[in-house]
Amino acid sequence: MTQAENKRVIFSALPSGIPVPGEHLKVEKSTINISGENLGDGDLLLKNLYFSLDPYLRGRMREATVKSYVPAFKLGDPMSNFAIATVLKSNNPEFPEGEIVRGSLPSEEYTHLRMEKIKSSNLEIIKDARKNQAQVPLTYYLGVLGMPGQTAWAGLNKIGKPKKGETLFVSAASGAVGQVVGQLAKSYGLKVIGIAGNDDKVDYLKNKLGFDAAFNYKTTDLNEALTRTCPQGININFENVGGKILDTVLPHMADFGRIPLCGYIAEYNNEENYGVKNLINVLTKRLDLQGFIVFEIMDKDDHRAFFKEVLALVQNGAVKYKDDLVCGIENLPEGFLKLFKGENNGKLVIEISKL
Amino acid sequence: MTQAENKRVIFSALPSGIPVPGEHLKVEKSTINISGENLGDGDLLLKNLYFSLDPYLRGRMREATVKSYVPAFKLGDPMSNFAIATVLKSNNPEFPEGEIVRGSLPSEEYTHLRMEKIKSSNLEIIKDARKNQAQVPLTYYLGVLGMPGQTAWAGLNKIGKPKKGETLFVSAASGAVGQVVGQLAKSYGLKVIGIAGNDDKVDYLKNKLGFDAAFNYKTTDLNEALTRTCPQGININFENVGGKILDTVLPHMADFGRIPLCGYIAEYNNEENYGVKNLINVLTKRLDLQGFIVFEIMDKDDHRAFFKEVLALVQNGAVKYKDDLVCGIENLPEGFLKLFKGENNGKLVIEISKL
Repeated sequence: MTQAENKRVIFSALPSGIPVPGEHLKVEKSTINISGENLGDGDLLLKNLYFSLDPYLRGRMREATVKSYVPAFKLGDPMSNFAIATVLKSNNPEFPEGEIVRGSLPSEEYTHLRMEKIKSSNLEIIKDARKNQAQVPLTYYLGVLGMPGQTAWAGLNKIGKPKKGETLFVSAASGAVGQVVGQLAKSYGLKVIGIAGNDDKVDYLKNKLGFDAAFNYKTTDLNEALTRTCPQGININFENVGGKILDTVLPHMADFGRIPLCGYIAEYNNEENYGVKNLINVLTKRLDLQGFIVFEIMDKDDHRAFFKEVLALVQNGAVKYKDDLVCGIENLPEGFLKLFKGENNGKLVIEISKL
Repeated sequence: MTQAENKRVIFSALPSGIPVPGEHLKVEKSTINISGENLGDGDLLLKNLYFSLDPYLRGRMREATVKSYVPAFKLGDPMSNFAIATVLKSNNPEFPEGEIVRGSLPSEEYTHLRMEKIKSSNLEIIKDARKNQAQVPLTYYLGVLGMPGQTAWAGLNKIGKPKKGETLFVSAASGAVGQVVGQLAKSYGLKVIGIAGNDDKVDYLKNKLGFDAAFNYKTTDLNEALTRTCPQGININFENVGGKILDTVLPHMADFGRIPLCGYIAEYNNEENYGVKNLINVLTKRLDLQGFIVFEIMDKDDHRAFFKEVLALVQNGAVKYKDDLVCGIENLPEGFLKLFKGENNGKLVIEISKL
């Protein structure tokens, strides 16, 4: 049996607001030769295991002519994003069969990765992935040890510049990035306040992740809560949401506060933009509001430092991490929507196949 | 004759919007002994010549209990700000009679400056002030060579980080700070675009100061003008105004643009705050929006470097500077309003007395 079914998720039409499953993202069935016989020199056949879903993907679902910091997806092609895979067949000695790898891969069950695409996919072998599996699930390489963890680490350290005893606020605090921001800040000796969109998430932040305070922003008067819990002001606002949340936090910033602007999920789906009224605080408090993209602000040394530090924190239990695992690639389109409805409970990952 | 009339401008009541002359700022007549006989050890009697009026003074006309980066004025006392004076009588060998000095002084004709107040007034002798008067009018030490010039230099160099060939945009471009920002940027090889509030100012920017383009923001569609004149985007937005101007400029910023936030004059008088809708550009373009106060970001070396560089540019004619001189301290309250009506034509200075 050399043919296998290969389900794929195709970017099939341009959404104007929140993407509609079946319309803008379609599951398509195809077949693939998995014998390895048709691999060219240096090619790989990958069996994909876990596919990461992140808010920034919405920004790639656009007209190719619109410029942005990440390329647009091509209509009719699968989406692509960070994924974990095993090497099923290999014509490439650098990636032996059986290895577990991470890279930017198409949203499909199997990928025939041609040699010339390996580099642009940033494919890399995850060292000790099998050995460490009990402590470090494979999904973690897409989350706390992957791009979201890197984003948290780099935004916090390079822009947030945390100092022991300071106060940090993080929005979307139970999300892929927020969880790591808050726990890293705790490990640096900061006071950490977070918000999330339901009581279960808030409970998780306070009772599992050790946040000093956490609020459900849908049912709490955030302004009042910050007045009460941050009397000395907020030194770092790790901003994932933007819009009204940012506007409410600005007057609570302390002098010389830093705002790493990591996301603006409030407006990823072209809703009417919210007008931020409290920007004068950036002047009167001499704040630094800085947008960033993780891959632009990390060099090789940063990557090494990040991995060493965070892996140790995960292994000794100081950093916990919650995944929201959606099983089956056919559920990717529905699963993606969770991000924009605030329904994901932890880092959203599609499980295409177990190892 | 040892008694002289000493007119003073008193901060007499808390304004809620634009201050009203005669109500919030009152001219009061008093007399002062100018014989020098009553000077204590180390004291000075100053004859004040020029008094600087700057937008930030509005922020000092507030309840003393409201915290800010500059202390509140005390009700019933004169305002104070940077001023130029001559030493009329001296009991202090460091400040001989006849010297021309700059410092933070009360808004009055004569000041008996007690020894213990000299340091907190930042009083300093202006070297060669008389000798250089033909090329460098005394008022320049309050403008291009004073705090506004320092603000332009420091905000541009330390936050704007200009590079030859880049594009700079400056609002309130013919104002005390804006004139210097634009001309310094030209001297560094940047393309410079500015806006001002009437056609005479625009003409001055284009035809006297060498701006590459300038617009009357009241009669020009700024969005259209920026699309046309900044096709590669704006690398530095030196922001003096905030609010709607900032909102219009944000989508025209180039990737990795810098926004030194120097002023937010649009909202100094407690008008309803404008909601800035285009902040998502800070993320998508990885911008750095940073508020600053000049005296916090300049050290002694910076002060020396600034003075050397800008004095040379003034002396060789590469930097021109326009003062808006209002004569007579009794006209200070009316004159101050020009800043908030956009009616000042250049750096606003009160001439209390000629040398």
